[in-house]
Amino acid sequence: MSGNTFGKIFRTTTHGESHGPAIGVVVDGVPAGMPLSEADVQRELDRRRPGQSIITTPRAEVDKVEILSGVFKGKTLGTPICMLVRNVDVDSRPYEAIKAKPRPGHADLTYWLKFGHVDHRGGGRAAARETVGRVAAGAIAKKLLASHGVEILGHTVEAAGVAVEGELSPAEIRKNVEKNPMRCGDPKVAEKMKRRVLEVSAKGDSTGGVVEVIALGVPTGLGNPVFEKLDAEIARALVSIGSVKGVEIGAGFRASRMLGSEMNDQLRLKEGKITSRTNNAGGILGGISIGMPIVARIAVKPTPSITKPQLTVDVARMRETELKLGGRFDPNICPRIVPVAEAMLALVLADHMLRAGKINPDRFE
Amino acid sequence: MSGNTFGKIFRTTTHGESHGPAIGVVVDGVPAGMPLSEADVQRELDRRRPGQSIITTPRAEVDKVEILSGVFKGKTLGTPICMLVRNVDVDSRPYEAIKAKPRPGHADLTYWLKFGHVDHRGGGRAAARETVGRVAAGAIAKKLLASHGVEILGHTVEAAGVAVEGELSPAEIRKNVEKNPMRCGDPKVAEKMKRRVLEVSAKGDSTGGVVEVIALGVPTGLGNPVFEKLDAEIARALVSIGSVKGVEIGAGFRASRMLGSEMNDQLRLKEGKITSRTNNAGGILGGISIGMPIVARIAVKPTPSITKPQLTVDVARMRETELKLGGRFDPNICPRIVPVAEAMLALVLADHMLRAGKINPDRFE
Amino acid sequence: MSGNTFGKIFRTTTHGESHGPAIGVVVDGVPAGMPLSEADVQRELDRRRPGQSIITTPRAEVDKVEILSGVFKGKTLGTPICMLVRNVDVDSRPYEAIKAKPRPGHADLTYWLKFGHVDHRGGGRAAARETVGRVAAGAIAKKLLASHGVEILGHTVEAAGVAVEGELSPAEIRKNVEKNPMRCGDPKVAEKMKRRVLEVSAKGDSTGGVVEVIALGVPTGLGNPVFEKLDAEIARALVSIGSVKGVEIGAGFRASRMLGSEMNDQLRLKEGKITSRTNNAGGILGGISIGMPIVARIAVKPTPSITKPQLTVDVARMRETELKLGGRFDPNICPRIVPVAEAMLALVLADHMLRAGKINPDRFE
Amino acid sequence: MSGNTFGKIFRTTTHGESHGPAIGVVVDGVPAGMPLSEADVQRELDRRRPGQSIITTPRAEVDKVEILSGVFKGKTLGTPICMLVRNVDVDSRPYEAIKAKPRPGHADLTYWLKFGHVDHRGGGRAAARETVGRVAAGAIAKKLLASHGVEILGHTVEAAGVAVEGELSPAEIRKNVEKNPMRCGDPKVAEKMKRRVLEVSAKGDSTGGVVEVIALGVPTGLGNPVFEKLDAEIARALVSIGSVKGVEIGAGFRASRMLGSEMNDQLRLKEGKITSRTNNAGGILGGISIGMPIVARIAVKPTPSITKPQLTVDVARMRETELKLGGRFDPNICPRIVPVAEAMLALVLADHMLRAGKINPDRFE
Repeated sequence: MSGNTFGKIFRTTTHGESHGPAIGVVVDGVPAGMPLSEADVQRELDRRRPGQSIITTPRAEVDKVEILSGVFKGKTLGTPICMLVRNVDVDSRPYEAIKAKPRPGHADLTYWLKFGHVDHRGGGRAAARETVGRVAAGAIAKKLLASHGVEILGHTVEAAGVAVEGELSPAEIRKNVEKNPMRCGDPKVAEKMKRRVLEVSAKGDSTGGVVEVIALGVPTGLGNPVFEKLDAEIARALVSIGSVKGVEIGAGFRASRMLGSEMNDQLRLKEGKITSRTNNAGGILGGISIGMPIVARIAVKPTPSITKPQLTVDVARMRETELKLGGRFDPNICPRIVPVAEAMLALVLADHMLRAGKINPDRFE
Repeated sequence: MSGNTFGKIFRTTTHGESHGPAIGVVVDGVPAGMPLSEADVQRELDRRRPGQSIITTPRAEVDKVEILSGVFKGKTLGTPICMLVRNVDVDSRPYEAIKAKPRPGHADLTYWLKFGHVDHRGGGRAAARETVGRVAAGAIAKKLLASHGVEILGHTVEAAGVAVEGELSPAEIRKNVEKNPMRCGDPKVAEKMKRRVLEVSAKGDSTGGVVEVIALGVPTGLGNPVFEKLDAEIARALVSIGSVKGVEIGAGFRASRMLGSEMNDQLRLKEGKITSRTNNAGGILGGISIGMPIVARIAVKPTPSITKPQLTVDVARMRETELKLGGRFDPNICPRIVPVAEAMLALVLADHMLRAGKINPDRFE
Repeated sequence: MSGNTFGKIFRTTTHGESHGPAIGVVVDGVPAGMPLSEADVQRELDRRRPGQSIITTPRAEVDKVEILSGVFKGKTLGTPICMLVRNVDVDSRPYEAIKAKPRPGHADLTYWLKFGHVDHRGGGRAAARETVGRVAAGAIAKKLLASHGVEILGHTVEAAGVAVEGELSPAEIRKNVEKNPMRCGDPKVAEKMKRRVLEVSAKGDSTGGVVEVIALGVPTGLGNPVFEKLDAEIARALVSIGSVKGVEIGAGFRASRMLGSEMNDQLRLKEGKITSRTNNAGGILGGISIGMPIVARIAVKPTPSITKPQLTVDVARMRETELKLGGRFDPNICPRIVPVAEAMLALVLADHMLRAGKINPDRFE
Repeated sequence: MSGNTFGKIFRTTTHGESHGPAIGVVVDGVPAGMPLSEADVQRELDRRRPGQSIITTPRAEVDKVEILSGVFKGKTLGTPICMLVRNVDVDSRPYEAIKAKPRPGHADLTYWLKFGHVDHRGGGRAAARETVGRVAAGAIAKKLLASHGVEILGHTVEAAGVAVEGELSPAEIRKNVEKNPMRCGDPKVAEKMKRRVLEVSAKGDSTGGVVEVIALGVPTGLGNPVFEKLDAEIARALVSIGSVKGVEIGAGFRASRMLGSEMNDQLRLKEGKITSRTNNAGGILGGISIGMPIVARIAVKPTPSITKPQLTVDVARMRETELKLGGRFDPNICPRIVPVAEAMLALVLADHMLRAGKINPDRFE
């Protein structure tokens, strides 16, 4: 069953199983003439890959990207860009023992129910490794957006129950987020997060959190009426990331307890432009961007792979059984979800910039 | 700019401005041979329309639906079903005075920025009235789903800060939800909600809340990998409803504070079938349905129309000004969002049932 | 089964059965601010309707269009435009006798095989009457194109074996096409066509022909690589019209017998612009417009409804039987296909102008 | 600008430039559990590659396919299948001299006009080499169709003005088509075609022809009303192949000169099933398959690369100039278009079999 393509004009098609020969992506709809190198993409993939710190799984994925089409003499051609990452350092042996035992919290069972024939090794297509394709495509989208004045930021605002207080400025986020393993914009909170994450991990358990993504410089008028509202498409994009159980825009769930007079962003003039005094809307009204920062947050569930024993069903013998996973897992995946969430926001915005005629679809200008 | 069509196989295209001649919808992709009458659709529209109770706006919309195509001798033809509702009892005069003054919290400003030429009367295309088309389409989707064993429920779980405690059973929801103006499954909570909603309303302000939708009887295997995950498409569908600022699936934002061992739904056998002991996943793992109830909640912001004075910008004169809305508005829109959210969930599920081959696309069976 | 929507950005969704309450269309993706009245649409519908001349069926369809949304104060809103035509002067009685006897050359049998439940009256959804929606949408597309310098022409180049010789100039086509019942650009040929058409018709039989459509003023660069080539999308659009059995672009089937040195349009400079000396390509190379006129021709089969007796199968009794159709039918449908083919070409070009950023999707400029 | 994806459920996304690192395709929507090996795909690619005979260009493309995802233990996974063919034996030097001189009949000029930045080497994305991806995807579609009783045949029915007379039986086509370099179902005609093709080629010129594709065993009911008619989608698919200037279904352009009583396929009962006595419709009525063979023919223009001198414009200096192409080219591309046209027909039918629920989208059965 298809489902591996995202976007209407800026179109991303990903493929690949975690332990198969390769993971890859084809990006269609990038205007011709944009400078693009493998280094542009590699930088983002390096932010995604495991083994970056004590917080992430130690699988030493090299994740070296190769661009196979769509670029000529350092510039895009307006044709599809195929990017490929070979899977190396893959040890599929641990999965043999559990191939009939779907892991709770994973897609093992649902894939098996749906498809019958599955690649049980490392989660197959449903593994976090699938996001390599998203991040590679997102790197191109980000570059295209940046050249049109749109910047994407992402950071962990809560992990293991430890939350950033108040709102961080874009400057703080830019400065701090790559300097701590939690990708938190506040270094002190990052330290507390890390401590709590490792405490839980040491007990064979895992934690989740909340990741926020922000787009600055988004022009007014992005998003279409009714079903293709910008916030609806952002919600879809972000919830399509594995482990995400919720999404909110602007004030989000807090809005449900506010009064109308508190929630409504009152309007004002600033340097001759109409803008709002607050940004509870998260930059979007009626599904259309208002020119304020776009702000979305996602609920990230705790890493489903834990070493604590769990109950499952042996689907070969159809009987209940205990599952004890060995190995090492991401104690908390928020920091690795940050670049993925940024990528998804970039994909939505690049697509909508093209759809609204804010980016020339044929030629990079 | 297009954006008024939803779904891939079960396709809904809506149209209409709040104070224009009519609101309508074309539903394409319904199998041939399904019994369908205007009464089937009217029933749902009556749940959506204003003037039902003290909680909702008194505009006496009759909202009488007319089916203009796609049905013959009481059965669907497999061709597009056009449904039309004429706009009557429309008083556009109050909007004349404010047509250059975008209402905070409404889409007035963004539509004007995007399109230049707008229908200022009653919010035009961005009005809540747009949901007539969704609900009419949803009525067909619900009927199709019901005949394939899928039931959709919706209820207000929180309003004006008053929340239902614990989880209500489907039986409780079915029994109570249409008996109180809040569409709350717990009659006592409903009473408290109503009181608080009216208190705030009396002060010229408004409140929001949280609406939950549930799908029972969903087969396993719905939803596609990666970008067309069932939860991603549900998120998009629900966030596309006006006033919705967030969505969560299963444990949702609560999941971000849980441990892996708490969050993971452990598996078991029940009557020979594999199922889970808990349903923190909300019925979806890896984007694919597991056969448990699908549960989603949305954050509904307070009604943006309030009588309290607000600051805005006169876009004709480009100067700041105060806005004082007259008239009567929904003090709280949760109860009217319930049927809309149900409709959107039904549209997603009908589409995915067709896509997964669980419903014959040509003939009703 | 869906299939009633055309286009990616300029999106047309049609509905309606020949003898149902109404035929209609929703057009989504028209920029806001374009002047549009019912008269603009009516003009094109009047060219399509039957009863215009001796060559067409005398059913006195009034086909009065009503615009129900998407237009305010004489200008488009950027929201979906719903147009409705009530079916009047409908006499369904003749179809009762043949409702179990699929008419050869019609879709009666295939609809019945696919859907099981069909509207047998007048061909239902598969009737030529379905093209009302196309022509109404095409009227809007044509107006949008005209304001961006693109003109669409159509004419009958062959009917009943009588063909126009050589190529007519746009001026000749414009001047003559609405002056004769065949919609032929050459008045003398038109006269011969008519005579031959009526001769055959008098014997209870029917004839077909070839219709040509031309787009002038198309900018360079429309059409996308590989699968969304402009000629491929034109082919799809034109073959989707009932009774069309073939399509060709530029030299078309003649190209298959030409030499490369004859077929290749050699390039030259004209007023500082690169253009070609001939136009065998029909204005499209590699699927992308070159700036020359776009030229396509379609093969129109003879009207399938004839009064000569034919063999069919009584599907209720499952036995072979003879079918004798009464009534009066279009002796030749080429003249009525002209506006439909023009409409389809306009829909493709409007969509591609938007996709290529040649038309602002939000605001009419 | 995107445009490199084909299909709704069975989705093919191709990429790659003729002289870039690789050509490839991602096929999404294949049910899980279908046996598939690289050999299945290689067989079709070998039919497409140049250097097969005296009729085709001698570039010794090895075109070795590698499957990088979507297959595990010899069976499909229901996830995207990425196939890659590295470009080897590429000599780009001849293209340096002509990089500012668009070749008449090629897409050089239109790509340059659209994109500004192009890969001039060997036609870049617009080269015939692009069809590697189509044929690889088509190999999978054919295998899926074959296991559901649908067979695809293709053959050259006319080349260089030499045409097959009458209709060949499927048995004749199957027997002869791979035994002669023209891929003609009649060996004697093939010999004449070849002689004429080589005669013209010896003079530095080229020829075209007509290719026919047939689908046997197609069930009734494929194709959707109005815009997604099966013949419309076949037309789009076939015209999207480079060098195709026309397409016809069944009687095609011949139909335009037939009488209704000749053209209408009269119906009869055969072994209890409703079928037609003739097949002028080419297996499709009202856009829906009737259960007869589906027959389509395409007009293939003469190979645009010829060694005769031609006039073009030097786009760097903006002045007219003569172009003299060196090297060796396909004298006639019909034989190599045969497998490509088969592939495109297979892609359409596989997609529609899935859309109509005739193939389970999740599991190979």
